[in-house]
Amino acid sequence: MARPTLDPAAAITGLTGWSVHDGDRPAIERTLKFADFNTAFAFMTRVALKAETMDHHPEWSNVYNRVTILLTTHDAGGVTDLDTTMARFIDAAAKALGGE
Amino acid sequence: MARPTLDPAAAITGLTGWSVHDGDRPAIERTLKFADFNTAFAFMTRVALKAETMDHHPEWSNVYNRVTILLTTHDAGGVTDLDTTMARFIDAAAKALGGE
Amino acid sequence: MARPTLDPAAAITGLTGWSVHDGDRPAIERTLKFADFNTAFAFMTRVALKAETMDHHPEWSNVYNRVTILLTTHDAGGVTDLDTTMARFIDAAAKALGGE
Amino acid sequence: MARPTLDPAAAITGLTGWSVHDGDRPAIERTLKFADFNTAFAFMTRVALKAETMDHHPEWSNVYNRVTILLTTHDAGGVTDLDTTMARFIDAAAKALGGE
Repeated sequence: MARPTLDPAAAITGLTGWSVHDGDRPAIERTLKFADFNTAFAFMTRVALKAETMDHHPEWSNVYNRVTILLTTHDAGGVTDLDTTMARFIDAAAKALGGE
Repeated sequence: MARPTLDPAAAITGLTGWSVHDGDRPAIERTLKFADFNTAFAFMTRVALKAETMDHHPEWSNVYNRVTILLTTHDAGGVTDLDTTMARFIDAAAKALGGE
Repeated sequence: MARPTLDPAAAITGLTGWSVHDGDRPAIERTLKFADFNTAFAFMTRVALKAETMDHHPEWSNVYNRVTILLTTHDAGGVTDLDTTMARFIDAAAKALGGE
Repeated sequence: MARPTLDPAAAITGLTGWSVHDGDRPAIERTLKFADFNTAFAFMTRVALKAETMDHHPEWSNVYNRVTILLTTHDAGGVTDLDTTMARFIDAAAKALGGE
């Protein structure tokens, strides 16, 4: 049975800086800005390690000190608790590394 | 004096799998597919380390085992030898890690 | 019940370049040399991602292009199949990145 | 001409948690403990990126959430300003990631 999906607008309640993806599928996204590439890539490494542990990976892009992350659960066709768990990890990791 | 720019179509001659970016500014791009996220992120780590050394960073995105990279030199307003040097590094690093 | 331990000398049969740790506890180890730090750290990133997935982490050191890895399973007080699984991953990852 | 060396005991003045290496050569060292492996490896990634930029690499080891770092400048046969620059970077990066 597929993991239950959440309303994206409800899913971002309680998260920091996330918005509902304005696109063709249900997803949530956040853009972060760090002091420099060094910090941004260390943040990405934290998320990469977490993603492997969860077997749940972001869609993300990076330009120098900026990282944009989109979260959705492909198997479920929407946003699930996997995404909110990852989003909370991202929020904490970004905060520690000065990302805003 | 700004670093001289290259014609993007000429710049990709001799590179593997690169195309001229179909967008609003001169750039070259390549999409790579690896066996899994583990390999894709190790590849990204190689490129990240190289980028810091060169102080020349890609615009890139990642979804699981895929990495899309766009190279351009912002200061010069186009593609330069920094991009072709980085592209050659990317081609070699991707090949070693099975990226295609 | 604790995971069964293996005789370290038997455990390294079929692996590449591993030896029985010459120390105070049962463990296996391998030293790898890469072309440069860039490649060595990409290898470490692959192992780090795998280690998190397995929740089984190496004891390792790095000096420029060299990486020395010691594997043992603390909970079991010896070498187990977790270590041989990790060792096989390490052998494959090192080979792909030119480590010897 | 070789880079001037510093007295290791003087070099660690103003740094956090560093000690003079108790070994056969002049060096300084620090051991850090993080919350988990995820954080420790993100810290190592920051140091790796910095090391490539400086072309000055640590001798370091990691066991789960602990990282031990030894700094010395091989070419100069002792501790130099490269090491104190790196040590200050390490102190700031560790602090941001909760390392102690």
